[in-house]
Amino acid sequence: MERTFIEEITTSPGQEVRVCGWIHRLRMLKTAAFIVLTDCSGSVQIVATPAQVTSLGLKLEDVLEVTALVRAEPRASGGRELQFVSGRVLSRSANLLPFTSASNLASVPTEVQLAHRPLSLRTESVGEVFRVQAAILEGFRAFLRSERFTEIVTSKLVATGTEGGSNLFEVKYFERAAYLAQSPQFYKEHGVAGLERVFETGHVYRAEPHATSRHLTEYCSLDLELGFVESAEPVMELERRLLTTLFQTLNQRFGDSIRKRSGAFLPELTRAPIWEFPECVERLRRAGIASPESDLSPEGERGLCTLAEQERGVPAVFVVGFPLAARPFYAHPRGTSGAAQSFDLLFRGLEITTGGQRLHTREALESSLRSRGMAVEAFESHLRMFELGMPPHGGLAIGLERLTAQVLGLANVREATLYPRDRVHLEP
Amino acid sequence: MERTFIEEITTSPGQEVRVCGWIHRLRMLKTAAFIVLTDCSGSVQIVATPAQVTSLGLKLEDVLEVTALVRAEPRASGGRELQFVSGRVLSRSANLLPFTSASNLASVPTEVQLAHRPLSLRTESVGEVFRVQAAILEGFRAFLRSERFTEIVTSKLVATGTEGGSNLFEVKYFERAAYLAQSPQFYKEHGVAGLERVFETGHVYRAEPHATSRHLTEYCSLDLELGFVESAEPVMELERRLLTTLFQTLNQRFGDSIRKRSGAFLPELTRAPIWEFPECVERLRRAGIASPESDLSPEGERGLCTLAEQERGVPAVFVVGFPLAARPFYAHPRGTSGAAQSFDLLFRGLEITTGGQRLHTREALESSLRSRGMAVEAFESHLRMFELGMPPHGGLAIGLERLTAQVLGLANVREATLYPRDRVHLEP
Repeated sequence: MERTFIEEITTSPGQEVRVCGWIHRLRMLKTAAFIVLTDCSGSVQIVATPAQVTSLGLKLEDVLEVTALVRAEPRASGGRELQFVSGRVLSRSANLLPFTSASNLASVPTEVQLAHRPLSLRTESVGEVFRVQAAILEGFRAFLRSERFTEIVTSKLVATGTEGGSNLFEVKYFERAAYLAQSPQFYKEHGVAGLERVFETGHVYRAEPHATSRHLTEYCSLDLELGFVESAEPVMELERRLLTTLFQTLNQRFGDSIRKRSGAFLPELTRAPIWEFPECVERLRRAGIASPESDLSPEGERGLCTLAEQERGVPAVFVVGFPLAARPFYAHPRGTSGAAQSFDLLFRGLEITTGGQRLHTREALESSLRSRGMAVEAFESHLRMFELGMPPHGGLAIGLERLTAQVLGLANVREATLYPRDRVHLEP
Repeated sequence: MERTFIEEITTSPGQEVRVCGWIHRLRMLKTAAFIVLTDCSGSVQIVATPAQVTSLGLKLEDVLEVTALVRAEPRASGGRELQFVSGRVLSRSANLLPFTSASNLASVPTEVQLAHRPLSLRTESVGEVFRVQAAILEGFRAFLRSERFTEIVTSKLVATGTEGGSNLFEVKYFERAAYLAQSPQFYKEHGVAGLERVFETGHVYRAEPHATSRHLTEYCSLDLELGFVESAEPVMELERRLLTTLFQTLNQRFGDSIRKRSGAFLPELTRAPIWEFPECVERLRRAGIASPESDLSPEGERGLCTLAEQERGVPAVFVVGFPLAARPFYAHPRGTSGAAQSFDLLFRGLEITTGGQRLHTREALESSLRSRGMAVEAFESHLRMFELGMPPHGGLAIGLERLTAQVLGLANVREATLYPRDRVHLEP
């Protein structure tokens, strides 16, 4: 008999079905046994007589196949339950588990959850984090395809870093050294010269020695880059529309849970204000929040989101016009006062995006490298591409794990990473 | 004025539009100048008087912004052309280019194309390779989402290899050694224990010292894994449906080009036969094609596709039941005669998929490791996950670059890779 997904069980009484899944709950009474079986589509209660199941030696998290009859049961979810006919244990779980798929993981340390990743994924709360993450990936790509972007896949093994060599992981590449890409920045810029609008969803690597709640050594970067952009504004405008569309989808699919976990539905990002960097410094000063003059501190990021929420009703703000010196060499100047056409998007207190307009001529790039004391020759294979017809362009990168964490109100980016990597963690 | 994508230019005569793009063709006559401008949406001819454009010093591949009037022109593609009003060169291309976006790249060596990737991408023929590749990625994910699979993102930095340590790239990871993942195999199996059905599209790494037309050191693997599978057959059945759906989409969107390049539309893969490995060896022997007894040679793969085409009219065949010894330690036995529940899908002469049913109990995995002389302890962090409720499962991996190459009839997998990596290539 074909296997039936639990969600697809009809309510026609008397119908026989074969279902497969994990034992999520189990109650053995004198007169009846109640098994709640879960698969990737949902859960169902199965009622058996003790005689039918005693010999199976069932326990929580065992993997079970059951043939059963459908029975209308108005009190059950979906209006039906199953009456056990026969069953087979497909796989046994251990006798001792630190938690089960029905546990409240709030009291289970992250390390223990991680060491039992399959089991933590099977809980509703953790499973949902990664279903939301998958929906973010899907929504990011779908929106950009609808805006004429082409997905690209670029190499993560590179000969030099995009930002001049710090925080790079070295790879033994046959007889020489290679490095793990910190960003697809150069490749997506080349992609603009070829395809005009490109995006990529892929890993990037930063040899961050410091473990904070916001940093990982490996994360998934949602990157886009587009041509015919002559300031930071069209890039911010694109992101506003992108995230507004994405957040609508997430509210529709996961809204109750997002509100429960984070305190609110996801806002309409088209309402997020755009504030110049000096204005932000001044606002923070007035609010008595410490933040350096050249960049934003974590406290500053939180403070600005609070101010945006108070003023505009949306806990998000685009900060534009950072000091050029605080941005990578390829950042385009914004006016002549030392500001860059670079922005960050802060959302619910955390920077989730960095973006802006880039320099698009070889001359400007060389001059920027020189002014920073960086070796022009080291970037030759990149600079050559700017002689092949490179339009003015800009783009952005969103950290997938950070965005997932902020959407759901998770305190640590590790909770939004299936297998987090940092100085300490290389397993599982 | 808002920029108009070329494809969206209406045919209302007299309307003024602003278009941006690259100069794809250029003819300067005494009485008129003809510019074919291309953007990510299409091409349009712009007619100017010599006086209007001479001072701009236009040349091929320059990046141009033009304000122009729409004019009905029945002979032009789309039934319209543009009458130049004013223009601005946004970016200059070099005076000397090895080819242009209108060149036939058949005579341009791959190395030269690669060294000028943005320019080669701007040609119709190379651009299309990567538009097809993007469509494959999209189609793979969309089909699997519709089959209840969840996308996962797993780490590419691992402490040990999945296949026992050969061909691994070593990464200097702070004070210790890490390795680049050869496959998300372990993680996707763990994913099955958590989410039942998972897929991932991401990079994998093989330190292949040999440069062949089929091998790269870094490639994009389309991976899936699903629970409640007790032989190789359901996995092959899923792939038949997956590729049939994907191929229909590709035929619809790129059919003419696929037929022109590869000689035929993409076939209906539901018609691909399934042949047991010993039967394949015998068929090849009868056809006089050399192939080892334990695996398939490249000649064998080509020969079997030819035989399938002759017998079934489809140049594809699933080969199932490879010798267990030729497969990784996690392969599930097929019967008791030393065969594995493992299959390859050969398509148009090349293996594009490896898949099968996996062992799903800790005991079976330990016994398999021991029988191969591999250290059980080295896999402890993996084996522990099999005690958390691991259903019988199986899955497959498709090489994205190989599939793209076979779809379009490209001779070398490097032609389907934006930035190929092999022993020689680490740049661009």
